Amino acid sequence: MVNLKNNIDKLAGQHNALFALDFLQTWDKSQKELEYILDLAQLLKDFRDINISTRCFDSGLAVSIFRDQSTRTRFSFASAANLLGLEVQDMDESKSQIAHGETIRETANMISFLTDIIGIRDDMFLGEGHKYMKEVGDALDEGFKHGVLPQRPGIINLQCDRDHPTQSMADLLHLKNYFGSLENLKGKKIAMTWAYSPSYGKPLSVPQGIIGLMTRFGMDVSLAYPEGYNLIQELEQQAARNARQNNTKFEIVHSMEEAFADANIVYPKSWAPFSVMQQRTELLKNKDAEGLKALEKSCLAQNANFTNWECDEEKMKLTKQGKVLYMHCLPADITGVSCKQGEVSESIFEKYRLTTYIEAGYKPYIIAAMMMANRFDDPGAILGKLFEKGKNRVMI
Amino acid sequence: MVNLKNNIDKLAGQHNALFALDFLQTWDKSQKELEYILDLAQLLKDFRDINISTRCFDSGLAVSIFRDQSTRTRFSFASAANLLGLEVQDMDESKSQIAHGETIRETANMISFLTDIIGIRDDMFLGEGHKYMKEVGDALDEGFKHGVLPQRPGIINLQCDRDHPTQSMADLLHLKNYFGSLENLKGKKIAMTWAYSPSYGKPLSVPQGIIGLMTRFGMDVSLAYPEGYNLIQELEQQAARNARQNNTKFEIVHSMEEAFADANIVYPKSWAPFSVMQQRTELLKNKDAEGLKALEKSCLAQNANFTNWECDEEKMKLTKQGKVLYMHCLPADITGVSCKQGEVSESIFEKYRLTTYIEAGYKPYIIAAMMMANRFDDPGAILGKLFEKGKNRVMI
Amino acid sequence: MVNLKNNIDKLAGQHNALFALDFLQTWDKSQKELEYILDLAQLLKDFRDINISTRCFDSGLAVSIFRDQSTRTRFSFASAANLLGLEVQDMDESKSQIAHGETIRETANMISFLTDIIGIRDDMFLGEGHKYMKEVGDALDEGFKHGVLPQRPGIINLQCDRDHPTQSMADLLHLKNYFGSLENLKGKKIAMTWAYSPSYGKPLSVPQGIIGLMTRFGMDVSLAYPEGYNLIQELEQQAARNARQNNTKFEIVHSMEEAFADANIVYPKSWAPFSVMQQRTELLKNKDAEGLKALEKSCLAQNANFTNWECDEEKMKLTKQGKVLYMHCLPADITGVSCKQGEVSESIFEKYRLTTYIEAGYKPYIIAAMMMANRFDDPGAILGKLFEKGKNRVMI
Repeated sequence: MVNLKNNIDKLAGQHNALFALDFLQTWDKSQKELEYILDLAQLLKDFRDINISTRCFDSGLAVSIFRDQSTRTRFSFASAANLLGLEVQDMDESKSQIAHGETIRETANMISFLTDIIGIRDDMFLGEGHKYMKEVGDALDEGFKHGVLPQRPGIINLQCDRDHPTQSMADLLHLKNYFGSLENLKGKKIAMTWAYSPSYGKPLSVPQGIIGLMTRFGMDVSLAYPEGYNLIQELEQQAARNARQNNTKFEIVHSMEEAFADANIVYPKSWAPFSVMQQRTELLKNKDAEGLKALEKSCLAQNANFTNWECDEEKMKLTKQGKVLYMHCLPADITGVSCKQGEVSESIFEKYRLTTYIEAGYKPYIIAAMMMANRFDDPGAILGKLFEKGKNRVMI
Repeated sequence: MVNLKNNIDKLAGQHNALFALDFLQTWDKSQKELEYILDLAQLLKDFRDINISTRCFDSGLAVSIFRDQSTRTRFSFASAANLLGLEVQDMDESKSQIAHGETIRETANMISFLTDIIGIRDDMFLGEGHKYMKEVGDALDEGFKHGVLPQRPGIINLQCDRDHPTQSMADLLHLKNYFGSLENLKGKKIAMTWAYSPSYGKPLSVPQGIIGLMTRFGMDVSLAYPEGYNLIQELEQQAARNARQNNTKFEIVHSMEEAFADANIVYPKSWAPFSVMQQRTELLKNKDAEGLKALEKSCLAQNANFTNWECDEEKMKLTKQGKVLYMHCLPADITGVSCKQGEVSESIFEKYRLTTYIEAGYKPYIIAAMMMANRFDDPGAILGKLFEKGKNRVMI
Repeated sequence: MVNLKNNIDKLAGQHNALFALDFLQTWDKSQKELEYILDLAQLLKDFRDINISTRCFDSGLAVSIFRDQSTRTRFSFASAANLLGLEVQDMDESKSQIAHGETIRETANMISFLTDIIGIRDDMFLGEGHKYMKEVGDALDEGFKHGVLPQRPGIINLQCDRDHPTQSMADLLHLKNYFGSLENLKGKKIAMTWAYSPSYGKPLSVPQGIIGLMTRFGMDVSLAYPEGYNLIQELEQQAARNARQNNTKFEIVHSMEEAFADANIVYPKSWAPFSVMQQRTELLKNKDAEGLKALEKSCLAQNANFTNWECDEEKMKLTKQGKVLYMHCLPADITGVSCKQGEVSESIFEKYRLTTYIEAGYKPYIIAAMMMANRFDDPGAILGKLFEKGKNRVMI
């Protein structure tokens, strides 16, 4: 309790540079701002663990727009909103029409009259998701400026074509707690590597998010994929630049084994090559069902050349003294469990299964922290008042 | 703040004749009762603007039944419920069976055990929506009378085949604020006119709602449509009667230009002719897919004769000194934006776009006011207590 | 009020043996525990009737998983959660993948980070629903034990292949209130009988739940069905054992008339024979559409031999002095109303219609009581504090 009070006071003393700004990509934010989110998320978790309510809204909506399926993030968003007193209202586009610029502008305002937060997942099309979020943001700016909206709702990126910040930040908080501190992450090697999967079309945002974030927090990042399976080039270059600026290492290799060598952390996860995603985006736009089928077929055939890109006992022996943290954003394609041949062997996954659940468990708090940082000038002061008040979340 | 306190006191002194009664059509209510809703809605907006919570329910459900698609009204209903502390529970009929009288009676009770408000949209079939709401209301009366329900939930019409009172009342509050007072609306001319749209089957409830309401608030109403595109005759006659009783004018003309002449307000919006809606209702009942396709085709061909019924720069010059307020319930069919040829030209819509957003922004408060007026004997007294309490909606 | 205070104190003095345990089947619980639920449910109803809030959660989710359609139970679950301050988040499996053991384990944890209650309906497959709930429970145990979850959410069975405890317990509370006390139920005869319906595939859980519960509360149970329409044999045997242990009677007869003879309560309701449900389960697993169609056809033909199994005026004369309570879980198949020939004649159903609504009205409170008993060591003490506080549910 004394510790918690100290941590609240520490946060309350800091300037919140995230106030009233959307959270779209971690690389739009300074390191200090990201650490602010980590601290705030941890405090929200601490409050809940000692059964003190963090309800700071008496009413208000948190609107979610999922343009792709989701379970994990959907429940994390709902939990985060509920934790702060906001009510989730899902915007089901099948019951509406968002087509061109004009209608985005309009819909953005129509769902926002009494809305504090909008969470958006739009990860299907390269070049689209991030752009869509910016357009929604511009529309909200316009609406707020002209008195349409009594407040400018904050936008939280729940996964776009470029970044998946609620995932990568939850991963970072997991790493911080797992290794004891951010300080302890310095010099650690993380292998963000492609892995084989019998499916295709998986987004690039997780690996892009990981290399863009971990290079800034003292870690050496080894990005591994088969030739041709590259990410958005600009974001690979950015990771390299991050590494230079932060005195960490960033390398791209074409062997899982090479990436695993002496790694402290491995993150084996499948994705579709950038070029495939580009073709897919074109075909989807043109509603070319035949073309999509052909692309899927050729892509799966291509993937099949790399079934040995599996995280297994053998490869794990290459890592730091054979001791390593396995990470995954879940669900993983587990060989012999969820598919015949997948990203990870059953024995390795089973060894780390509960740890990946713990990793996932940080997401609701990260999202709640992003919400608070967006809505409150001084979230630390708010937490201070809530601590003072000491209202129990569950009556005792 | 002093003003707000005065306005609360003024409301608290009035008798609430709307208490415990459903809100199905504006013409079921007296002018005084409608003004009461406007005042209450404005107060709720004022409270939110100064960050004072209007949560007057600690628990309770607001059930929504959407028998047609909706974004705007869905979010308005959810926002209104949340503003007062009610939780929205959507009744998805695809997961249930409402077929004949018996089952309406039953379902109405089954969803109402702990429910305070039921909002219903049922605008697809002529002669059905309003009837359905009455049947639900009768079932709730019976259930409450016989001890099935601990309370009699109030029903709010979220659009039926006859009226769209949350829309027309939001429009009226917009007009009141735009022109400064209800007094200032006296003698203003409003052109409620049909406009061309490349779609068919749009409900009649908005124009019917507008002519039924505005004729009672001092405005001269000019209803314009191509020959044959008339509304429910009884409701046209009622508007004429309203005009006679309130010393306003009501005319039906068959030229957009004529309606626009010297108008202070124009409301150009497409709808399907009454006779088409009647045929459509029959075909839908008989599940006659062929017949529906044929009807749509002939109806669109018929519409195509009237593409010049577009609200454009030229026609706007005919209005009061070329200065006029453009209104729309949104979304509008905008020429060159959402369709090739539509209800309104791009330049006109763009000029009034943000104003139409502000118009839409009154709907959550109108709905919340209808909820409060239904549930509380004296909403003004409740607001007085909430003001006294002064709990912030968002913690500060 | 004095009475209410006494009843609260009486409950507060009792040990809550249901704390932290899932509620899957009534026969897993002692008679005392079931009476505890009845008392708690009644208190929650009493609180609401005098407008005192029972909100004991300031935040928290109640997750619902409906693997089959539902209106009644869906709204009851939502109402119960809302009554206590929990927010419902529906887990829509069409937007996720729950397939094999592995994924149940994972999903159970992923939806539970900030979740207090999980309600599950899974009644489609014999041998599956109950098993599924146990698997979810095991996964939650594991997650809680290893620090994945800050709390172990409680599971409430909203209908499985074996029991429908929220229904049977609501029925029991209805009986208790209808006849004045549990004591008064002693020696009463209840006829749980199959009835004709033009549909097939109706679950066995209601009749199984009724014979498993009522044999323990002093009632003599006559289970009637046409030869071959038996329930899960183990559960029929258990009902017989219950009867022996509780000095009540349990018989199986093959005539509705025999069951109705001198009955105080009749519960005529259709179900599919156990053997058909077994075949259906196999066919559904194999996705054998042809086989399912053939089974439905033969089953409906088989049912058609028993159209005289209808609860009508004639048969009701056989009951206790012609005075009897008719019960149904709703919706009933009513001859001439919801179908040509069904479970009950129109005149009989109409006589008891409102009474069946009152019966259904206990379900929200039963579910809320199960939630409280699971989450609070001493729900009576919590209610005592809420009574003391006396906050109104709806402001006055």
